[in-house]
Amino acid sequence: MPYVQVTWVAGRTPEQKRKLAERITLALIEDGRAKRENIQVTFVDLPPTDYAEAGVTVADQKRTP
Amino acid sequence: MPYVQVTWVAGRTPEQKRKLAERITLALIEDGRAKRENIQVTFVDLPPTDYAEAGVTVADQKRTP
Amino acid sequence: MPYVQVTWVAGRTPEQKRKLAERITLALIEDGRAKRENIQVTFVDLPPTDYAEAGVTVADQKRTP
Amino acid sequence: MPYVQVTWVAGRTPEQKRKLAERITLALIEDGRAKRENIQVTFVDLPPTDYAEAGVTVADQKRTP
Amino acid sequence: MPYVQVTWVAGRTPEQKRKLAERITLALIEDGRAKRENIQVTFVDLPPTDYAEAGVTVADQKRTP
Amino acid sequence: MPYVQVTWVAGRTPEQKRKLAERITLALIEDGRAKRENIQVTFVDLPPTDYAEAGVTVADQKRTP
Repeated sequence: MPYVQVTWVAGRTPEQKRKLAERITLALIEDGRAKRENIQVTFVDLPPTDYAEAGVTVADQKRTP
Repeated sequence: MPYVQVTWVAGRTPEQKRKLAERITLALIEDGRAKRENIQVTFVDLPPTDYAEAGVTVADQKRTP
Repeated sequence: MPYVQVTWVAGRTPEQKRKLAERITLALIEDGRAKRENIQVTFVDLPPTDYAEAGVTVADQKRTP
Repeated sequence: MPYVQVTWVAGRTPEQKRKLAERITLALIEDGRAKRENIQVTFVDLPPTDYAEAGVTVADQKRTP
Repeated sequence: MPYVQVTWVAGRTPEQKRKLAERITLALIEDGRAKRENIQVTFVDLPPTDYAEAGVTVADQKRTP
Repeated sequence: MPYVQVTWVAGRTPEQKRKLAERITLALIEDGRAKRENIQVTFVDLPPTDYAEAGVTVADQKRTP
């Protein structure tokens, strides 16, 4: 505890995820009274057809996710 | 806000998801007092081996998902 | 299947949720090839301190959620 | 109801998921007063780069997931 | 890993949740190659107005959740 | 996009959540190529009876969550 899930459109590298997992973990330790060994951080990559903002999928937004 | 996640077995087309994202967004605006620009709708496609109903996976139900 | 989860700041009435559940269910039947009896729709109400947009919680946005 | 989601690193076979779905369903019936026909169990498989424990992704933990 | 989330209508006792958490954990160890110390199981209790099956909220189904 | 959900046992103050929401948002901008205006961060507070680690609920772990 805690469990963190980041849901977004695919496109980040393993290195970016590695850095983000560590930064989010550190934030939870320092500002959330969490213990490192219990923290789990996950990334759920979705295709751009499967994430819509304001009713429009990222695929249709004609921009890089 | 709000954030909507639809979890199901894969098999819908991008066009079906596009229509659903818009319909769900519209419903949240009209009946949920949400503002369009803040609404996010996502679809999580799972393989038929990974979704079970009543203890039986969709793959084992011998029917189209 | 499908399972739908709507996460937002509390403030909608049971009547609003009732209407939304039916509208989302109907959309999934008509545009998502889902069968009514398998559709589940949930609402997760969060306090305004627990939902942040653009880094600012709804409680701090000084506006109705 | 209930809806159960198991999130983990990919690597289990369809047969393992089949057994787990049935065991979890049975547990919910026997100890959770749930009715079989309403129970949904899903598995969300993530790549080892996308699941971090204690700030370290499973891919970096140098062990099988 | 894995992380398990059970979403349902409130009404189970802490004792029922205690038993379910252990049973689900054991199933994941025995049939899912998971290590006990990494398994997290959570229960998300919703009011009966906030969970709909087949378009009808549990509150409206006129039956015990 | 992205949508972030932090699930844990209740006990953090609104000020702690405010700081965490900003830190996570900033991490996603700097290391995840996300745009501030699209980022949503939520916190789901659970009672200690509803979060189990290694098969034991936090309530039963006889320690502060």
